[in-house]
Amino acid sequence: MVVDTKTQRGYIIPIGGRESKLANPKVLEKFVQLSGGKNAHIVIIPTASELSDTGENYVNLFKTLGVKSAYSLEIQKRVDTSKTDYLEKIQGATGIFMTGGNQLLLSTTLGGTPVAQLIRRKNQAGANVAGTSAGAAFIPEHMIAGGQPGLMPRGSMVVLAPGLGLTNKIIVDQHFSQRDRLGRLLTALSYNPFITGIGIDEDTGAFLGPDNVIEVVGSGMLTIVDMSHLDYSSVHKASADEPISLVGIRMHTLVSGARYDALNHIAYPHQD
Amino acid sequence: MVVDTKTQRGYIIPIGGRESKLANPKVLEKFVQLSGGKNAHIVIIPTASELSDTGENYVNLFKTLGVKSAYSLEIQKRVDTSKTDYLEKIQGATGIFMTGGNQLLLSTTLGGTPVAQLIRRKNQAGANVAGTSAGAAFIPEHMIAGGQPGLMPRGSMVVLAPGLGLTNKIIVDQHFSQRDRLGRLLTALSYNPFITGIGIDEDTGAFLGPDNVIEVVGSGMLTIVDMSHLDYSSVHKASADEPISLVGIRMHTLVSGARYDALNHIAYPHQD
Repeated sequence: MVVDTKTQRGYIIPIGGRESKLANPKVLEKFVQLSGGKNAHIVIIPTASELSDTGENYVNLFKTLGVKSAYSLEIQKRVDTSKTDYLEKIQGATGIFMTGGNQLLLSTTLGGTPVAQLIRRKNQAGANVAGTSAGAAFIPEHMIAGGQPGLMPRGSMVVLAPGLGLTNKIIVDQHFSQRDRLGRLLTALSYNPFITGIGIDEDTGAFLGPDNVIEVVGSGMLTIVDMSHLDYSSVHKASADEPISLVGIRMHTLVSGARYDALNHIAYPHQD
Repeated sequence: MVVDTKTQRGYIIPIGGRESKLANPKVLEKFVQLSGGKNAHIVIIPTASELSDTGENYVNLFKTLGVKSAYSLEIQKRVDTSKTDYLEKIQGATGIFMTGGNQLLLSTTLGGTPVAQLIRRKNQAGANVAGTSAGAAFIPEHMIAGGQPGLMPRGSMVVLAPGLGLTNKIIVDQHFSQRDRLGRLLTALSYNPFITGIGIDEDTGAFLGPDNVIEVVGSGMLTIVDMSHLDYSSVHKASADEPISLVGIRMHTLVSGARYDALNHIAYPHQD
């Protein structure tokens, strides 16, 4: 099913990194299917990666998954972002995929450029935008740029930076269980509880639809941190290493098939 | 203040391990103060420890803190639990302290013995019972005997066993942030959400009063996991390595001075 490009924005699809590529590529298959299946036009943005073959590897992968049109835009410098043929490729895309690497390479290279602006417009007009690992972190208005592992929210746990800005409903963190990131996500949310935190495990995607309902796909889980009922945060007075009091966190752990309504804060578990 | 031994049970005080002993012993000082200060009668149970001097070290520590009467019961085998002089010491105690080590040494040595029965009766009659690390795990009706570190609740994350049984309001886990134990606590709670989970950091005590209000004391935090509004748990069908869906977790992180009403599930953050 291709989302109606006239009326609805496309899916926003942060992926937790290390998504299965050949053995059981459920997350990538779902992205392809939503973007038109074999008739999808996939554009890959490997800017976060410092490896030269990342984009081409994804081109081959999407072709293996049956996509006839897959193209990698080798954007390494800000000047690359005004290349006419790149902008034309994005203009024709039904799905845009940002690879992993370093999210600050994405934000410093793409931020405020014609490429970033066009991706936002395309998503508003119906194209799906996925990102894995660093590509996932970059997706929202507020991006987790870095931080420390561990359970305990503390003053110095997280570094926030402006992201691509496709949504301000959620803030995402990736490799979530694998890299032990609840503490830094809680800290990020403690500053301003209007945002919902989505901790995304490896090989797992959060498919945020145009209705702001998230569907979980993949072998890991999503950790949903809903701060909409937060009664108290002590972050205003927490020094770097001091734990932060947070009263009223709501949390869900959701596996493949479950859904979460990010607008109304309701979780629908998968029930066979 | 000594709790009235006729009408109220004593405090139940799980401590997260590695409590400060000389530099800034706030947790131990509070236990001593509640138990009568210099006139307290402290009995130490070092059964969890495999080191021969653990009990004597705590005797010296409590004397340094001003306690005139501190005594260690060297219970290593089940047969030791019927020694008349040990039972007399417990009978006269205002505070009972169980050291760290291995909680299965506590449960296998003390379980069902006259010592365990007397500790329960004494706590009911007003004596305070504290335990650090393994001693904390052993306190409740349901004890976390072991498990795996990590954020993700999974079928095989935790091993539960019957504990001392001083309370079934809470289940405790210790060294909580330091050893990354949210996943195993969530798994433990997923089986039967009536219990509230208390994740206790090192150098931190959860002072559960006779009114079932917990006060946080120490340099770390308590992670309160309130399952009383849980809508769904998939633990019944989760295989060993599969993540568990949990919908409706409520959580608070609380630092020193904060309180949590474990009966009514209300958190009172510390506000200067």
